[in-house]
Amino acid sequence: MPHTSAKRPKRITILGATGSIGESTLDLVGRNPDDYEVVALTGNKNVARLAELAVRHRAKLAVVADAGSYKDLLLALAGTGIEVAAGPKALLEAASRPADWIMAAIVGVAGLRPTLRAVRQGTAVALANKECLVSGGEIFMREVAAHGTTLLPVDSEHSAAKQAMTGTDLDRIECVCLTASGGPFRTWSAERMASAGPEQALKHPNWSMGAKVTIDSASLMNKGLELIEAHHLFTLPPEKLDVVVHPQSIVHCLVQMTDGAVLAQLSCPDMRTPIAYSLAWPERMHVPNERLDLAKLGSLTFETPDPERFPALRLAKEVLETGGSAGAVLNAANEVAVAAFLENRLGFLGIAGLVETTLADCADLTGLSPESAEDVYEIDEEARRRARDRLPRWAS
Amino acid sequence: MPHTSAKRPKRITILGATGSIGESTLDLVGRNPDDYEVVALTGNKNVARLAELAVRHRAKLAVVADAGSYKDLLLALAGTGIEVAAGPKALLEAASRPADWIMAAIVGVAGLRPTLRAVRQGTAVALANKECLVSGGEIFMREVAAHGTTLLPVDSEHSAAKQAMTGTDLDRIECVCLTASGGPFRTWSAERMASAGPEQALKHPNWSMGAKVTIDSASLMNKGLELIEAHHLFTLPPEKLDVVVHPQSIVHCLVQMTDGAVLAQLSCPDMRTPIAYSLAWPERMHVPNERLDLAKLGSLTFETPDPERFPALRLAKEVLETGGSAGAVLNAANEVAVAAFLENRLGFLGIAGLVETTLADCADLTGLSPESAEDVYEIDEEARRRARDRLPRWAS
Repeated sequence: MPHTSAKRPKRITILGATGSIGESTLDLVGRNPDDYEVVALTGNKNVARLAELAVRHRAKLAVVADAGSYKDLLLALAGTGIEVAAGPKALLEAASRPADWIMAAIVGVAGLRPTLRAVRQGTAVALANKECLVSGGEIFMREVAAHGTTLLPVDSEHSAAKQAMTGTDLDRIECVCLTASGGPFRTWSAERMASAGPEQALKHPNWSMGAKVTIDSASLMNKGLELIEAHHLFTLPPEKLDVVVHPQSIVHCLVQMTDGAVLAQLSCPDMRTPIAYSLAWPERMHVPNERLDLAKLGSLTFETPDPERFPALRLAKEVLETGGSAGAVLNAANEVAVAAFLENRLGFLGIAGLVETTLADCADLTGLSPESAEDVYEIDEEARRRARDRLPRWAS
Repeated sequence: MPHTSAKRPKRITILGATGSIGESTLDLVGRNPDDYEVVALTGNKNVARLAELAVRHRAKLAVVADAGSYKDLLLALAGTGIEVAAGPKALLEAASRPADWIMAAIVGVAGLRPTLRAVRQGTAVALANKECLVSGGEIFMREVAAHGTTLLPVDSEHSAAKQAMTGTDLDRIECVCLTASGGPFRTWSAERMASAGPEQALKHPNWSMGAKVTIDSASLMNKGLELIEAHHLFTLPPEKLDVVVHPQSIVHCLVQMTDGAVLAQLSCPDMRTPIAYSLAWPERMHVPNERLDLAKLGSLTFETPDPERFPALRLAKEVLETGGSAGAVLNAANEVAVAAFLENRLGFLGIAGLVETTLADCADLTGLSPESAEDVYEIDEEARRRARDRLPRWAS
């Protein structure tokens, strides 16, 4: 790859620069400005922040996804020499600009099309978008393979898996075990969970994240989605994937090898560590974040997830067995369910309930093998429609 | 290396075949007989077992270190076509027989000379002998470098370190942290430790090992020796080496990287796992031993070693700073001290006391830089003499 030259800076693009992953990436870039050349930064709507980041990191191109914000961005960057564009087409164009490394951190299924563009460059894509794998895993990985792209997972668990698997052949790996914090309801009874509202579910014990992913952590659906991601990322069958509850969120993944050895990656909860791993790969950079002090922590605990109270893992495993578009349906139904829960229109246990009902009622959809991002979007839309239709059945 | 051919079996030699490491190695070899060709097996005195192993594994050569046992071995292997030899010279000859992989599992400083012979083949040496590194680290590693030999550590902690470090440049490693069980006296007061006898010290919580290493585990001298080994094996300065007490002995080593990530290797306590890693390296083999079940274990605990009750770690770090022959003196004095403790001639706290006194009184020796195995043996002998002289001062 071109960036292995000792002198030439790595040309990077960040899709989703104003989100938490984008900001953390730029924090690392800003600490080593000579090592990177920023090709393009894109944001969703936050024009002021996008402009600020583009100026600070001397980006060549700044793109706002919201077409209506074009003038604002143009104004904000007037006289800087930074190229400005807006709208979905401009986003795709930004993803296609030659770069050695592209951070794909656009949230939601909307990230699929621009990330596919990035993949087609055949360089390196740091993947922070879940839906590319959960909803579009098969077509996405086909493109990755076709273009010889290096896919670098950014999720702390998948980054940990990649680090722990390094140097071991896939057929020597017996199991990749992702850890789950267990969320705020880890020790709650089903009765208590049934009456939990958003204010309880939003209290994540270790990570400060957006509302959607925090609810997914409470239901363990987040771990279910991660199992599907791991399946696609590492070409692992469902029986080689597992989850263990680890409330301290220090160990992120454990990989069981055929010789009895287990390799694990640990760190203090800080997304800059997995981002840095993807950014510096195959090397490692220096990150001045907190170092792990196990003696200070005292103990790491582990327990089996309860399949009764947390059906999400079972649903995810069923989705892996079904294949096709089951992942897209699962993801769409879950998004509808979580949104309804956050609006107090669905009880907590109704989230998995609605997802399961929708999956059962979408056998015609799950059987489809999408051929393009457009197919995935259509299935996603249809699954959302059906989930919304079924919502009243589960509504509290 | 020649053994990378898919078809040709790996030619292996085991120095110390009748000991626990040798037996475990042959257990693995016996499960995959087509993958290995046994060049030579050597044993110390157990002729019957050596002959049995040589026949079972179709060794070309069997050597007994004890010259007086030649006839017994000849008789035991009569008619088998297996070449027989005895005595120290034959041992060196066995180590020099062309092999792709040599297990160096002879116990004690006596292992230095044959292991050096094995190293000079320039292939791969699996190192289970501590003294090569602790007593002869500088000359040993110089020979390893000169012959381009692959050194594969067999100690569970160093094997774990090598596994966790794979794929990361040395300058990206901030710290290699070895774990220590803490031994049977982990929670004892100094007063209670002062009156502990061999029967208490020999109760190791997790591993079943020989008396010497079990006592070393109780005093943490074993971990001190391992710090010295790690220093030589991985070219790590003392400030990049650390120890954490971990009573469950499940995590064997943790490696802190510069980006905040920690890679760790874990396994159930079974020496076949690190031996298998060295045997199959750079691949991994299948070992049908117990798999780690963290949920069943429930928790892993960690604590800082107490420098007051366990001065061995401080002594080892001082030895690393001193360099030269300090490691040889430490090892010799410790062997004398442990032997005296096992004979009830020295109290438990006297072990570290005698080692510290001997080190202080051997400044003339520790300053020497040995040039050969003979130099190491001489320094070892002299240090033992002086330790024995100083014994009455510490005797209980």
